[in-house]
Amino acid sequence: MNQVSPPKPIRLGMVGGGNDAFIGAVHRIASRIDDHYRLMAGALSSTPEKSRQSGVAIGLPRIYDDFKQMAIREARRKDGVEAVSIVTPNHMHYPVAREFLKRGIHVICDKPLTSTLADAKKLAKLAEESSALFILTHNYTGYPMVRQARQMVQAGEIGPIRVVQVEYPQDWLTEAQDFKQAEWRTDPARSGLGGSTGDIGTHAFNLASFITGLEVESLAADLQAFVPGRQVDDNAHVMLRFEGGAKGMLWSSQVAPGNENALRIRVYGEKGGLEWAQEDPNYLWHSPLGEPKRLITRNGAGAGESAARVSRIPPGHPEGYLEGFANIYTEAARAIVSARDGTPLPDDLLFPTVQDGLKGVQFVSACVKSSNKNSAWVRLQH
Amino acid sequence: MNQVSPPKPIRLGMVGGGNDAFIGAVHRIASRIDDHYRLMAGALSSTPEKSRQSGVAIGLPRIYDDFKQMAIREARRKDGVEAVSIVTPNHMHYPVAREFLKRGIHVICDKPLTSTLADAKKLAKLAEESSALFILTHNYTGYPMVRQARQMVQAGEIGPIRVVQVEYPQDWLTEAQDFKQAEWRTDPARSGLGGSTGDIGTHAFNLASFITGLEVESLAADLQAFVPGRQVDDNAHVMLRFEGGAKGMLWSSQVAPGNENALRIRVYGEKGGLEWAQEDPNYLWHSPLGEPKRLITRNGAGAGESAARVSRIPPGHPEGYLEGFANIYTEAARAIVSARDGTPLPDDLLFPTVQDGLKGVQFVSACVKSSNKNSAWVRLQH
Amino acid sequence: MNQVSPPKPIRLGMVGGGNDAFIGAVHRIASRIDDHYRLMAGALSSTPEKSRQSGVAIGLPRIYDDFKQMAIREARRKDGVEAVSIVTPNHMHYPVAREFLKRGIHVICDKPLTSTLADAKKLAKLAEESSALFILTHNYTGYPMVRQARQMVQAGEIGPIRVVQVEYPQDWLTEAQDFKQAEWRTDPARSGLGGSTGDIGTHAFNLASFITGLEVESLAADLQAFVPGRQVDDNAHVMLRFEGGAKGMLWSSQVAPGNENALRIRVYGEKGGLEWAQEDPNYLWHSPLGEPKRLITRNGAGAGESAARVSRIPPGHPEGYLEGFANIYTEAARAIVSARDGTPLPDDLLFPTVQDGLKGVQFVSACVKSSNKNSAWVRLQH
Amino acid sequence: MNQVSPPKPIRLGMVGGGNDAFIGAVHRIASRIDDHYRLMAGALSSTPEKSRQSGVAIGLPRIYDDFKQMAIREARRKDGVEAVSIVTPNHMHYPVAREFLKRGIHVICDKPLTSTLADAKKLAKLAEESSALFILTHNYTGYPMVRQARQMVQAGEIGPIRVVQVEYPQDWLTEAQDFKQAEWRTDPARSGLGGSTGDIGTHAFNLASFITGLEVESLAADLQAFVPGRQVDDNAHVMLRFEGGAKGMLWSSQVAPGNENALRIRVYGEKGGLEWAQEDPNYLWHSPLGEPKRLITRNGAGAGESAARVSRIPPGHPEGYLEGFANIYTEAARAIVSARDGTPLPDDLLFPTVQDGLKGVQFVSACVKSSNKNSAWVRLQH
Repeated sequence: MNQVSPPKPIRLGMVGGGNDAFIGAVHRIASRIDDHYRLMAGALSSTPEKSRQSGVAIGLPRIYDDFKQMAIREARRKDGVEAVSIVTPNHMHYPVAREFLKRGIHVICDKPLTSTLADAKKLAKLAEESSALFILTHNYTGYPMVRQARQMVQAGEIGPIRVVQVEYPQDWLTEAQDFKQAEWRTDPARSGLGGSTGDIGTHAFNLASFITGLEVESLAADLQAFVPGRQVDDNAHVMLRFEGGAKGMLWSSQVAPGNENALRIRVYGEKGGLEWAQEDPNYLWHSPLGEPKRLITRNGAGAGESAARVSRIPPGHPEGYLEGFANIYTEAARAIVSARDGTPLPDDLLFPTVQDGLKGVQFVSACVKSSNKNSAWVRLQH
Repeated sequence: MNQVSPPKPIRLGMVGGGNDAFIGAVHRIASRIDDHYRLMAGALSSTPEKSRQSGVAIGLPRIYDDFKQMAIREARRKDGVEAVSIVTPNHMHYPVAREFLKRGIHVICDKPLTSTLADAKKLAKLAEESSALFILTHNYTGYPMVRQARQMVQAGEIGPIRVVQVEYPQDWLTEAQDFKQAEWRTDPARSGLGGSTGDIGTHAFNLASFITGLEVESLAADLQAFVPGRQVDDNAHVMLRFEGGAKGMLWSSQVAPGNENALRIRVYGEKGGLEWAQEDPNYLWHSPLGEPKRLITRNGAGAGESAARVSRIPPGHPEGYLEGFANIYTEAARAIVSARDGTPLPDDLLFPTVQDGLKGVQFVSACVKSSNKNSAWVRLQH
Repeated sequence: MNQVSPPKPIRLGMVGGGNDAFIGAVHRIASRIDDHYRLMAGALSSTPEKSRQSGVAIGLPRIYDDFKQMAIREARRKDGVEAVSIVTPNHMHYPVAREFLKRGIHVICDKPLTSTLADAKKLAKLAEESSALFILTHNYTGYPMVRQARQMVQAGEIGPIRVVQVEYPQDWLTEAQDFKQAEWRTDPARSGLGGSTGDIGTHAFNLASFITGLEVESLAADLQAFVPGRQVDDNAHVMLRFEGGAKGMLWSSQVAPGNENALRIRVYGEKGGLEWAQEDPNYLWHSPLGEPKRLITRNGAGAGESAARVSRIPPGHPEGYLEGFANIYTEAARAIVSARDGTPLPDDLLFPTVQDGLKGVQFVSACVKSSNKNSAWVRLQH
Repeated sequence: MNQVSPPKPIRLGMVGGGNDAFIGAVHRIASRIDDHYRLMAGALSSTPEKSRQSGVAIGLPRIYDDFKQMAIREARRKDGVEAVSIVTPNHMHYPVAREFLKRGIHVICDKPLTSTLADAKKLAKLAEESSALFILTHNYTGYPMVRQARQMVQAGEIGPIRVVQVEYPQDWLTEAQDFKQAEWRTDPARSGLGGSTGDIGTHAFNLASFITGLEVESLAADLQAFVPGRQVDDNAHVMLRFEGGAKGMLWSSQVAPGNENALRIRVYGEKGGLEWAQEDPNYLWHSPLGEPKRLITRNGAGAGESAARVSRIPPGHPEGYLEGFANIYTEAARAIVSARDGTPLPDDLLFPTVQDGLKGVQFVSACVKSSNKNSAWVRLQH
């Protein structure tokens, strides 16, 4: 683990992530694991009362009633937050990020970037004009063996890529649900036009590009809402064409019983194949053409520097989802400390950007458009 | 195992399957395992000389120079063959089958049915008009756990089906090959217009229908020949729409390093999921919604009658590809003995028919057509 | 597959293996798969009536009331059986084998060799003095990847061996059972003093030596009959010391729920490790020290000649228990044809012998002795 | 996750865990994950200079030259540490723990408890007489699915237990090593008489009792140092007899290539079996007798309250080694807060105690004694 020496921990704020939220707690743990942050302020819910309750429950030093007030006041404090984590429902990412970015506070934002393409474009523009950093938590790119895969592709170990099979099935929306997590994720006003495509398809889409280094040029999609009354897709079949000629398939589903969180990618080149599964994240299968398959393990024999750098413990001691997530936070911390110190960003720094977020929203938008046109091929804008 | 009592073994002939052929030897072993057949005659190669060499090598009682001569003479003998196995390259299936069918000799034919849709239609018509039986060796339907899956779907154990993910990747054509197996399979004149779609995609397509009981209504395909100079597809991405509203994806590839023969199917319904993989064929995953996944084993606890009937040995004693293939031969034997005895076919008899073969060729044809029209949806003819 | 050209199939007889027997049917299928035998005669049960019924049911040409009559008459016929398969309960192996061996008829005998050590010694002496061959069906040594493992050890690929972990758990005797298979196997008069040790422990013991080439020097055992009233062990914990200093553990159990037939071996040397599991027999894990683990597949990249010779079909097309068993029959056929022709046995011929059988019975005997002496170390006689 | 509300985080100290140490960093991360501790003071190395360097590197507020000085001074401060983590080599556990315990500072101590049985007994006495708490980090008992297994055994779901197979192979000492981790672990003066038995065998031994609720009554061991010159065992074969009649085997090894950290346990009762593997910790196999095996997932369908209580995130989002370790720290925090508040310990609180530590050292001692007596059965003292 390449350590950032933490003389002064980064002062962190949080918007969203109140009592019932799953992802807020994840962000908080991720920020603690490598000890680079102190959570100092937050507006954790959409109502002042809930914000206060949630803030008190986690011992938050400064609790705000709403995010705008928080941005204004924190920006004025000498000891105000240097960065903010945005973990609200999707439709709030843009308005929240705007308030912080324009005041020079770094943003660590959950995915998808926004609920609409228009917002995504505005946010991308804003982020690029801002002096503040923007980090998107496509957390799966933080897994060591995902980085191992990327490094192997870059090093040419599987040759020019031909085929990419990526899938992200879940089963938690197999039946109609009305609890909080399900509720906003199936409401287009808050989630965006994509259902499974936005919530998990964007992860799969991002992962494919992250590992292969290839951009999707166009896609043909067949979306479906299987559960009666559901307004967004809960299953998506997508064919992909990559720049340079590789082909791929992407499947996202939230109605596939037996799949808890089964993000999985397989990449095939002229000289070999790679396979990685999120539910078994400490392993990467490498199939050199004409040789036996090899099982590369995190921090084990055969794993390279890019994976070792984001590992904490020896092979055989599994790291999981939270450590992968923490790697994004630690990469962000390295960037924030560089910004604070006025030094250039480290060469090996690697985190998802606002551009990755924009591409994700473009992906959702293209899926919806293609599906509405009976699966016609739709070009992605770059 | 439901035994056919074998007072008089079935006299079997074979066309194709000479020295270098893989699939001929498979058919011969499959015919022996349950002891229902005696191989009595054959025209094993395309030239008289090779036919003789190959016939002598396996101790064949009656060796013919060519299949037509064989059909004519065997039909005249009192002790002539009752059935013939056709294991030639695809383009010969039709002309060979025609000679035997029209003489009332049962045909056990390898897949795909034919190399062209025109031939397939003619053969289907011929087979249906003939008094002889026609059995297509979509051998994967002979695996006990495939039958278990089918039985569970029929019994409603996973509820109405929503999603079908089927794939059949291999890696043996990742590079250009010139040995015999590869050579005719990549020659459209002998193999047909489909490459991976015909050779293995038809198996995947058939398996999806066999297990789910659903017919594909239309498909959208993106075919590719990745290896320079290859004239048929070596990778196919296909989206499927089934009658009744289920959706699916089919991937066939012969350029996916690390995949030896990785046929795999996953079926998701409203109440649960099923998963089966050919390389680990004695197991079936069943995921009832809201309960832990269960691993059903061949002949083990939880396996039903339809699987037990085609199993030979206790659970934990793996049966494999040859036993699955033998199950098709044994089902055929039951049918042939019924035909011989003039008794009705058993109710539980289950083997792929000429109609299944026709559908397979229609699938290949639709894939090529869709791909040529930039992946437009193409209806399958039924 | 190294083929024996079969101009004249070997005429085979069978003793035992009547209607209810599992293992008789296995032997018959195994004898057919590679087409080297014709089953011509048998005394399939312990009573004349059952023998006849069973013989008729499988279309046996010559049915005998008892094995002695069969041995006498077949030995007199010009076209009498050349070899006999003995598939009776254990206590009958010796008396049956004696009648055939002394008449020069080759014996293919199920394991364990005998039910008592005294019988085993007599049989070993008899077999070695006889002109006839004696083949013991420790069928697991017929699996291609077991032979691959042996070849790799011999080639020094894992270095000098230090540790051998072998286990064979099953669950079918977790509760008291009274069906035929269970009944004789838990009766010391017919099964011998060992329960799980004799029925399956001998397989594990044999496998350890087969793969490593090492003999067990002494053992310390703790046997148990967990099911009330059971007269033979249903669970055995055994520590092993091998000649040359390697150490090992052997666990056999028939009361381990969830284990169908879970024979598994792991061998560790100074330079690497090997792991093989019977329920997934087409794979062998090879762990070279300091490198990623490799998954060697039957007939696939990385598999050597010794495995390829006993494989029939390409990688990814699983072969199973019956094919592994058939490999023993085919090795026997090669030996029998050599004997028939008066040619020397092929160099690469490999099948379990009467000496292997004797060692197995010595193993059972030593286990019982050690356990009776509170797990004192007991030397094995060689 | 049952949250301790953290109005005042627990002030934590650390002894050992300097720059090169693996386990110190693990303890620090584990203490942070659930936000119950602040690390305030430490004596991280055996020399003042190294202690200072290591303390500065992690931004430690109060750095001490040695542990005794630290204990004295911290005990005098009003804001002194409330608890100390001891992560030194084994031989220092006792002297360090003594200084803190006698001053009423809670101790969180790495395993094994001590390097000698004499020390272990003294420490156990001391800890029981102290007002301070003593928590031993047998961290594997913190894994949710280990607790799930324990709960299922307690609930009778697998019936009375008959057989326990536990193993803990590693490969990192296959060759002689001289780096720090290896060096003290193979030095009997610092590690104790046991090598693999002490370092990892104690974990396996503890786990068996933790899950089954059974105590080992006696054992028979065969220890070995395979690497020339090594003074402690690097491989141990142990047969176990439990109170009440269950039997077991324990294998620990550090010379088994291909095993990174492969702790694994299988428990068989009259009604079913359980299987858990540390390298795949989010899953528990449950094999109810006569039914298909079930795969129970952390926080998924089929997992109970005892596992859910120590899980943070939804099923399919893997938690790993650090989260399991953190669960011990969080259990300790609950106990410490209760002690601080003078309230009774929660009923469901579960952490390894000094008695568990004493049993572990007794296990090592008994292994060495048995092995020295040619594997005679040795009773464990309770």
